[in-house]
Amino acid sequence: MVDAEIVAIGSELLLGGAADTNSLFLADELLKLGIEVRYKTVVGDLPKDIEAVLLHAFERARIVITTGGLGPTEDDLTRKVVARVTGRRLVLHNDALAAITHRLAARGRPVTAEQTTQALIPHRANILQNPVGIAPGFFLMRDDRGVMCLPGVPSEMRRMFSEGGGGCLEPLAGEALHGSMLRRRLRTFGLTESEVDSRLRDLYRAEPNVVLGLQAGEEGVDISITVRARHVDSAQSTMKRVERAVRDRMGHALYAVGSQTMEGVLALQLKARRLTVTVAESCTGGLVSQRLTSIPGSSSYFKRGYVVYSNKSKVEMLKISGTLLNEKGAVSREVVTAMAEAVRARGNTDLGVAVTGIAGPSGGTKEKPVGLVFWAVADKKQTLWLSQIFGGDREGIRRRASQAVLDMLRRYLSGKPVVE
Amino acid sequence: MVDAEIVAIGSELLLGGAADTNSLFLADELLKLGIEVRYKTVVGDLPKDIEAVLLHAFERARIVITTGGLGPTEDDLTRKVVARVTGRRLVLHNDALAAITHRLAARGRPVTAEQTTQALIPHRANILQNPVGIAPGFFLMRDDRGVMCLPGVPSEMRRMFSEGGGGCLEPLAGEALHGSMLRRRLRTFGLTESEVDSRLRDLYRAEPNVVLGLQAGEEGVDISITVRARHVDSAQSTMKRVERAVRDRMGHALYAVGSQTMEGVLALQLKARRLTVTVAESCTGGLVSQRLTSIPGSSSYFKRGYVVYSNKSKVEMLKISGTLLNEKGAVSREVVTAMAEAVRARGNTDLGVAVTGIAGPSGGTKEKPVGLVFWAVADKKQTLWLSQIFGGDREGIRRRASQAVLDMLRRYLSGKPVVE
Repeated sequence: MVDAEIVAIGSELLLGGAADTNSLFLADELLKLGIEVRYKTVVGDLPKDIEAVLLHAFERARIVITTGGLGPTEDDLTRKVVARVTGRRLVLHNDALAAITHRLAARGRPVTAEQTTQALIPHRANILQNPVGIAPGFFLMRDDRGVMCLPGVPSEMRRMFSEGGGGCLEPLAGEALHGSMLRRRLRTFGLTESEVDSRLRDLYRAEPNVVLGLQAGEEGVDISITVRARHVDSAQSTMKRVERAVRDRMGHALYAVGSQTMEGVLALQLKARRLTVTVAESCTGGLVSQRLTSIPGSSSYFKRGYVVYSNKSKVEMLKISGTLLNEKGAVSREVVTAMAEAVRARGNTDLGVAVTGIAGPSGGTKEKPVGLVFWAVADKKQTLWLSQIFGGDREGIRRRASQAVLDMLRRYLSGKPVVE
Repeated sequence: MVDAEIVAIGSELLLGGAADTNSLFLADELLKLGIEVRYKTVVGDLPKDIEAVLLHAFERARIVITTGGLGPTEDDLTRKVVARVTGRRLVLHNDALAAITHRLAARGRPVTAEQTTQALIPHRANILQNPVGIAPGFFLMRDDRGVMCLPGVPSEMRRMFSEGGGGCLEPLAGEALHGSMLRRRLRTFGLTESEVDSRLRDLYRAEPNVVLGLQAGEEGVDISITVRARHVDSAQSTMKRVERAVRDRMGHALYAVGSQTMEGVLALQLKARRLTVTVAESCTGGLVSQRLTSIPGSSSYFKRGYVVYSNKSKVEMLKISGTLLNEKGAVSREVVTAMAEAVRARGNTDLGVAVTGIAGPSGGTKEKPVGLVFWAVADKKQTLWLSQIFGGDREGIRRRASQAVLDMLRRYLSGKPVVE
């Protein structure tokens, strides 16, 4: 395995402001190339700090990838410092400047003097195009070490790495592949971390070259399987065996693999079966619709959504009976099933989905505490519903509720029991 | 200033899976106590790696805060390793166990053997309650160094720090407060990073003890002001002066301070003026409604939302004219203003807000490229609209569009010009 260090540059990452999601994407992508991220470092915008971190990174990692600091402003220092530590001079790169001019023109903006500084690139570096932003990235070698500089904006960084950056690293990855490591993430929903743990317990020590890890979050419990072996073939066969054992123990709770999301899985199911869905949501306030439409091509299965936040909107938009709302309350089995049936009919779709609950922090009672959520899926013949009390704060409860709704739809579409 | 190091524990943070947002919150909170985060480290679930990182942290930081690794499973190692490096034994803490039992019972679940391990705490450590989760945290001193162990789940970590953790650190912060550092974040929307940069250019070198930093993202450009001074008083007066200068240069583009969000600012405005709003969204698919309802108490200003994703839904739900849709296209000034006016009327609210655009990756044409978005705000008398071509990928375009819609509403409510 070749070692890599990811260096995130920017005081805002050190001192509050923006989360570093870039290193997650990069770690996954690098592993596919046989490169293991061993270190992650965050450094502020001081030139001498960046320089010290980069020099230290060259000592312990074969590949150093920086994110951030490629913008047009005074505290965007990556180009300068990388040029210095690699002993190159900065030169104005004409193609890079042309690309910057072109992209700004497409947005109807002129090129400012500051923006031209983004075309200053260390001499003989390999330019990486930025298809969705302005600043180009670059890759160069310093002795036998590779340095890649990517933008900090996640969408730009991802596209740049996928459409050029990754390819630059392949020669480095291949030549030093002593031994192999594979990693796979299996995603579950509906079981607690303790339940997943106890189902996997006998596997933890079964194979010495396999590590199982659990990560519980608002989207469920993810299981990571890491396999190390001398050769790729034996790593692959071990992975296959362990994955099968984990899948057996997880059953229908397993909903996705790798970086796939619940909404991504649902998109595939809905498209394959040519089914359409309408959503009615109260406590989640639009989150379920937003997640379903986050997938490209979602217009084939999602046509409309109703955010029925107030009781009055439930009556007016979905014709839920005011008497029912008064007698059972908006957060009830009766209302959620009526909502799912109503939106299916109003949207004229195959399925109706609904969710109602108490996201808090106020509004809870002893009978109906904060975190109590009901959700339902209706088709032409039947309406299924579930209910649970979720933990967490307001945003956490909303995220867990949205995941539960989507999971119910997934189980329904798979022909699997909705509850086990 | 007292130095702190934040150590995020968990292989999933190193190797793809979950982003570390905890350190951002902690950095902000610590600064309020006069504690500066100088280092951030991410380490996997191997005991010897965690031990090495903690020992190194004790060398260079007065306060070490860990997040993660407090769960009930085999790879939750924080309790064990911290006990070892601080030379304490682990003891079963009865109050902690009672709290765990109580919280599980509230969710209708029994306590498993694994979960009782979460009540094993280093001897004489100060327990930190977990009001929204199961595992308790703790704080203890090792010689003159403080160690605090918090859960990895962000909502749990935040509540635990705010309701107990922060207080434990105050004595450490106070006793060694040599010099003072203040930081403030001013958030802008509507200007590019280059534009913000050029407006601030003369301030960068004006004061030697002040550092200005810019961070561009999907929510706009954030400006951080960092002031260092010998005494708190002089730091505060410098901050006041610099903040005023920055505010003057940003004008109406400045929408929030610190960790406040656009939706948080809007909530205050709408509540103060007792106004209500209805939302119609196409390309954002529920995101605008979701953001407006993410604020506790949002039911006072938000009653309902329409996710009109298909043309048919625009006709059926909002009575937008089919002829207009055919002639002008769904992504047009005419349709977005009609949508805003229609939802205002249907929702019977003071204001109607609408957004329509091409989020991509497909669906763009030469005249209407991917990223083109129209949005509008309607009141009883007038309908204002704006349009822009946003960069980024599908999710980036949707997020930028939602921010633009909310910003237009903010400017409208402030009586400020919607466009400058």
